Amino acid sequence: MAAPLQGREIRLKSRPHGEPTPDNFETVTVSVPEPTEGQVLVRNHFMSVDPYMRGRMNDAKSYVPPFKLGEALDGGAVGQVLRSRSPDFKEGDFVVGTGGWREYAVAPAKHYQKADPSVGPLSAYLGVLGMPGMTAYVGLLDIGKPKAGDTVFVSAAAGAVGGVVGQIARIQGCRVVGSVGSDAKVKHLRDDLKFDTALNYKTAPIAESLAKACPNGIDVYFDNVGGDHLEAAIGLMNDHGRIVLCGSISQYNATTPAPGPRNLGLAVGKRLTLQGYIILDHEDRRPAFLRDMGQWLREGKVKDVSTVVDGLDQAVGAFIGLLRGDNTGKMLVRLAKDA
Amino acid sequence: MAAPLQGREIRLKSRPHGEPTPDNFETVTVSVPEPTEGQVLVRNHFMSVDPYMRGRMNDAKSYVPPFKLGEALDGGAVGQVLRSRSPDFKEGDFVVGTGGWREYAVAPAKHYQKADPSVGPLSAYLGVLGMPGMTAYVGLLDIGKPKAGDTVFVSAAAGAVGGVVGQIARIQGCRVVGSVGSDAKVKHLRDDLKFDTALNYKTAPIAESLAKACPNGIDVYFDNVGGDHLEAAIGLMNDHGRIVLCGSISQYNATTPAPGPRNLGLAVGKRLTLQGYIILDHEDRRPAFLRDMGQWLREGKVKDVSTVVDGLDQAVGAFIGLLRGDNTGKMLVRLAKDA
Repeated sequence: MAAPLQGREIRLKSRPHGEPTPDNFETVTVSVPEPTEGQVLVRNHFMSVDPYMRGRMNDAKSYVPPFKLGEALDGGAVGQVLRSRSPDFKEGDFVVGTGGWREYAVAPAKHYQKADPSVGPLSAYLGVLGMPGMTAYVGLLDIGKPKAGDTVFVSAAAGAVGGVVGQIARIQGCRVVGSVGSDAKVKHLRDDLKFDTALNYKTAPIAESLAKACPNGIDVYFDNVGGDHLEAAIGLMNDHGRIVLCGSISQYNATTPAPGPRNLGLAVGKRLTLQGYIILDHEDRRPAFLRDMGQWLREGKVKDVSTVVDGLDQAVGAFIGLLRGDNTGKMLVRLAKDA
Repeated sequence: MAAPLQGREIRLKSRPHGEPTPDNFETVTVSVPEPTEGQVLVRNHFMSVDPYMRGRMNDAKSYVPPFKLGEALDGGAVGQVLRSRSPDFKEGDFVVGTGGWREYAVAPAKHYQKADPSVGPLSAYLGVLGMPGMTAYVGLLDIGKPKAGDTVFVSAAAGAVGGVVGQIARIQGCRVVGSVGSDAKVKHLRDDLKFDTALNYKTAPIAESLAKACPNGIDVYFDNVGGDHLEAAIGLMNDHGRIVLCGSISQYNATTPAPGPRNLGLAVGKRLTLQGYIILDHEDRRPAFLRDMGQWLREGKVKDVSTVVDGLDQAVGAFIGLLRGDNTGKMLVRLAKDA
C-alpha cells in the first residue's frame, strides 16, 4: 500500500477585525483521505481568492455560512481528477468546483463541473468562464438591462467582475466608463479592455471626475464598491436608470458602518431601480452564459485577464492584496507548478 | 353683459428655505377669464395639498417643473363645470384635474377627467380614487408585489398614500405594520384601518419598535419617509424583499442632506430591490385601479379618510401642517361652502 498522499491546507485561526493579517490564518499539512463512494480526489491547479470571502470570515449570518475557526477555508478551485469513485468523472478530467485553499480536495462529485480546456485555459474557469464572469453576465444583462447607446458605469473596473462587465457592455453597444484605483489600471482599461473612459478615483473626487466623464448621465451603474461611488452615481443617473448592487468592497474591512448615499431620495423622481443579487440564484443562466462567453473569448471580444501568484504560501497575501486592489483581473493562486 | 367672475388664487411669493412659512405665499383676487375654444371653466369644490408640492417650491430640476414665482400654484382639484367650450364636458359635470390653489380654474378640457359621484364622494377623487390612491395601488401591487402571508411595512401610514397601501395589503392577505407620529394615529390605524400593528416612531427608536413588530422580518417596505425608517427596514428585510421608494417626507424641508442608510450594502446578500416610481408613468393602470378601488370602496374594504379644512385662506396652513403630519388621511381644502 502506497504512503498516504500529503497536502497542505489553510485554516482560519482567528476572525479578522478590519483588514485581515497573516496571523488570522495557519497552514497545516494533512493526510489526504481516499475518496469514498460518490466522491472524487482532485489535485488543485489554481485556487481563487474572492472579495466575498471576507464576509465569510466574520461570524455573521449571510447568504453563505461563515468559515469555521480551526477548519480549512474553501472557495473556487480548478484542477484535475486523480481518483474518482463517481461515474460522472474519470481520472484526468479537468474540473471546476469548490474545495480551494488546499492542494488536494476530496469532495462529492456533484460539487464539481467539467471544465473544457478547448473553450479557454483552465484558470479561466475561475474568471471569465467562472463565477466572476457569470456574475458580470447576469448582473449586467439581466439586472442592468443595457441598451445600445446607454452609458454604463462600473466601479472596481479592473477587477475580475468589473473588467468583464465593461467588456460585455461594449459588446452591447454601450459607452463604458470605469473607475479604478491606479493610473496603471486606467491604462489597462483603455488599452487592453477598450473602455471609452477610465478614472482613477484616488487622484480626484469621484463625484467630480464621474460628472465630467458622463456628460449625458448614467443609464446603468454596476456597483462593486458602495460608499462614495454609489452616491456619485445616483447623482448622475438618468431617469429609469438601473443600479446593479453586486458588492461594496470599500466596506468589507470597515469596522464601523460608512455613511449611506445621502441622495437616495433622488431614486423616486428619477425612477431608479437598485437591485442586489447573488449569482448562486441564477444557475439557470449558466448554459447561455457559457455559450455566449465562450464565443466572445474565441472571437477575442472578451479578454481573460488575471494576476497570478505561485504557491499556497502566497494565498493569504493574495487575499489581503485583493482587498487592497493589488490585482488586475482575476486574482489567482497557482497551486500546481506544472499547471 | 354680466360683471366678470371674481375668484381668489394663491401665488408663490418667495421660495421657502426649510419649512415653508405663510410669508412665502400671497392670496390675490383675479378676474376669471372666459374659457376659449377647447377649454372649460370649473368651480373648484376641493383642492389637494400634497407632499410633492414642497419639491416644486424649490428652483430645482425634477420630474415636474418648479412653481414659478409670482404665479398661482397648481395641483389636484375637483369641482363642477360652470361653462364648457369642449364637447367632452357639459355644464354641471363633476370633474377632477389640476388647477388647484384657486377658487375657479380655466383650463383645456384635456386636463380633466369625469368624476362619477356614484362611485364615491367627489372629494375621494383627490384621495382613494385619485392620485394618492393610485400611487398606493401601483406602488404596492406592481412594484412591491406582495404575496399572501407577507409582512408589509408602510411608513407615514396614516397619510393619504400610506393608509391606502395598508388597506390594500390587508386585502392581499398580508400582515400589515405601519408607523405614524402620534398615538391618535396609532389608534386610527388599528381601529379604523385594521392594521395588524401600528407604531409611534416618536415614542421609541424606529429600529427597535420595528424589530419587535416584525419577528419574521419584512417582505415589502413601502417607503414614504426615507431616513432612519429606510435604514431600519433594510436591516429587517427578508431575502428577495422589495422596497417601494415612493417619497421621503422626512427630508423635504431639510436644508442639508440627511445621512443615507448605512446598511444599504445588505441589499446584495439579501437580494433586495429598491425601486422609485412616479405615478404619472403608470396611466395605463388607471382602468384597473378605478375598477378595483371602486369595488373595494363599495364593499367597505377600503375606507376614504380625509382631514378637511375650510376655505382658500386655510390652504397654506393645511400645506405646512401636512409636512408636519397634522393630517389623518388625505389633507383637503374645501373651497365651495356648499360642497
